[in-house]
Amino acid sequence: MDIYMDNSATTKVADEVKEIVLKVMTEDFGNPSSKHIKGVEAEKYIKDAKQIIASSLKVKDKEIFFTSGGTESNNLAIIGAANAYKRSGNHIITSKIEHPSVINPFVYLEEQGFDVSYVGVDSQGHIDEEELKSLLRPDTILVSFMMTNNEVGATQDVKRLVDIIRENNKATIIHVDAVQAYAKYKIFPSKWGVDLLSVSGHKLHGPKGIGFLYIKEKTKIKPIILGGNQQDGIRSGTENVPGIAGLGLAAKLAYEGFDEKIAHMREIRDFMSKEFAGIEGVSVNNETGDNAPHIVSASFEGVKSEVFLHSLEDKGIYVSSGSACSTHKRAPSGTLVALGVKKELLDCTLRFSLCDENTMDEAKYVVEAVKELYPKLKLFRHY
Amino acid sequence: MDIYMDNSATTKVADEVKEIVLKVMTEDFGNPSSKHIKGVEAEKYIKDAKQIIASSLKVKDKEIFFTSGGTESNNLAIIGAANAYKRSGNHIITSKIEHPSVINPFVYLEEQGFDVSYVGVDSQGHIDEEELKSLLRPDTILVSFMMTNNEVGATQDVKRLVDIIRENNKATIIHVDAVQAYAKYKIFPSKWGVDLLSVSGHKLHGPKGIGFLYIKEKTKIKPIILGGNQQDGIRSGTENVPGIAGLGLAAKLAYEGFDEKIAHMREIRDFMSKEFAGIEGVSVNNETGDNAPHIVSASFEGVKSEVFLHSLEDKGIYVSSGSACSTHKRAPSGTLVALGVKKELLDCTLRFSLCDENTMDEAKYVVEAVKELYPKLKLFRHY
Repeated sequence: MDIYMDNSATTKVADEVKEIVLKVMTEDFGNPSSKHIKGVEAEKYIKDAKQIIASSLKVKDKEIFFTSGGTESNNLAIIGAANAYKRSGNHIITSKIEHPSVINPFVYLEEQGFDVSYVGVDSQGHIDEEELKSLLRPDTILVSFMMTNNEVGATQDVKRLVDIIRENNKATIIHVDAVQAYAKYKIFPSKWGVDLLSVSGHKLHGPKGIGFLYIKEKTKIKPIILGGNQQDGIRSGTENVPGIAGLGLAAKLAYEGFDEKIAHMREIRDFMSKEFAGIEGVSVNNETGDNAPHIVSASFEGVKSEVFLHSLEDKGIYVSSGSACSTHKRAPSGTLVALGVKKELLDCTLRFSLCDENTMDEAKYVVEAVKELYPKLKLFRHY
Repeated sequence: MDIYMDNSATTKVADEVKEIVLKVMTEDFGNPSSKHIKGVEAEKYIKDAKQIIASSLKVKDKEIFFTSGGTESNNLAIIGAANAYKRSGNHIITSKIEHPSVINPFVYLEEQGFDVSYVGVDSQGHIDEEELKSLLRPDTILVSFMMTNNEVGATQDVKRLVDIIRENNKATIIHVDAVQAYAKYKIFPSKWGVDLLSVSGHKLHGPKGIGFLYIKEKTKIKPIILGGNQQDGIRSGTENVPGIAGLGLAAKLAYEGFDEKIAHMREIRDFMSKEFAGIEGVSVNNETGDNAPHIVSASFEGVKSEVFLHSLEDKGIYVSSGSACSTHKRAPSGTLVALGVKKELLDCTLRFSLCDENTMDEAKYVVEAVKELYPKLKLFRHY
């Protein structure tokens, strides 16, 4: 039995997506910059994908730009906006629970002379609104925060945070990392007042190596990859047409039967969450109702996550210790620290992340496995 | 009849490559950063691809870094090296016939305060060695030139140029854009003394959205995309494993039966080149023996390339006007200007670019079509 509950790390590509990727690689394989029909056909796939994605966000087609994934989208948004607006101010803000592809661009910008503030969160991972208000300044040109956290699934009320930021300064550029939120929530950047929004393909049964950045019309961005001026010069390089077509289709599929899929995942999530919370020595790190439907984060006192992970693997269950988005990282998770998780639990935390193909039977099997393994593993540590 | 002779713009993905991409997307779809077996399996594909590519270049596996394509490889090499070595000097050199993904990073670096020199070429596209010698300075930290030009196929004697650069300053970082050269030549960066070398997947029947940069051991590079520190921090972001596996296999296939494939393409190229040169009013822009085996560039006096391109398209022949790597570019080609092509021919130039699947019969059909169409089109311009 193979139970894959590491969908926040990456997902299996959907069969329909596979088919379109395959078709574009071998039949409609033209370069969109070519002037003959094979170029025109390739361009059509890009146009269609933009249309699907823009429609899911209720924004304009021309506001969608394709990148090589979530990491590039975040870099382009943050470094690109900071450099484009640096004459308007020098202050930029992000939170303490961001993905490394947001934190590291902020660290880089700090080295370049930007003044960076890191806003904290409460024990449920919600941004501290009072602290945010106190940090905002007239020269704050950029605020970046993730909608759904990749480690615990904590989800921000984006509209509410945007309103707080806009009250201080209408011109501040707001970037939302929606890599874990897209396809799990209905997201309306234009309605909410978001200027930039990042999404990655491989988190929603789309291909790896492709993502997009929503850039609100008239928002200025300095490109970070320069060349043949594809995509209005925002992102040069021959477009990854098979990836783009695959991402477009994955986005379409994700929002079909959306409410049922989300309810299904949430049911499984709530079940696992409740069961884990009932085990002595286990604390669930995300119990609020607005938490993402697909992530359960639990800390198992006295058992190192890596040990537990491999014991579950022996039973065909695949999960993550914290986040898989950072390679061979030995440092404790910044997110769990910011949430106030006790020091001795930082290294004892597992993330179970779902997709809509996971079943309640799988969840029950996982819960049983955890209940069986945990006391044994906890005992072993004494020897 | 469909005759695709726009292989320098992009190629059809090979069937074997398609199969491996498909397998990795739907079966071995793990995130290489995941600690369970699905992560380990994914990592194995990366390791294998690195091994194949490194072996083709006779370099070390750990010197291969994957990017989203040739454009990103060129940006990472040039911007990354200039920023890493700026304390050693402020002077950087490139040629006048580079791809936009090299030229535009140099323009950007010039804006950032670097002193940039552009070396010229002769009528066959070879870098002017005397001019290069005169431009080199003790503070020259970086020289970047393409091995094979994308518009005319002019190919540099890399080793010879490296020796000239090294005579001036042993520490100068040398970057070679080998996007059009890899899989067409046997390339040995380490033996030749090259520090950085860029390659793109979709030019060699590999997938779009994937490429690599060879970085000689101990060469410093400041990353341009920051995040989870994948690939030793040189290029963050979840690795595009299907793309990487596909590129590895494409590289393997490209160097199988290599001599026969190159001889086959060269035979077709020489035939077309000779036939075109025999037509009154036509000048072939690349007649030297060391020119790339897959590119024929010809200028057709009195007929706009875009008109000719679409007339050929009506006969099922797909070619390019100049280079397809720059979208909707209306400016005359910098390469053709640098080669000294007459002003009235700049807009009258077609590129026929081959792959090893093109046949001599196709070439004969194309030559006949050109011979039939050219006098007619030339006549029309008077009306």
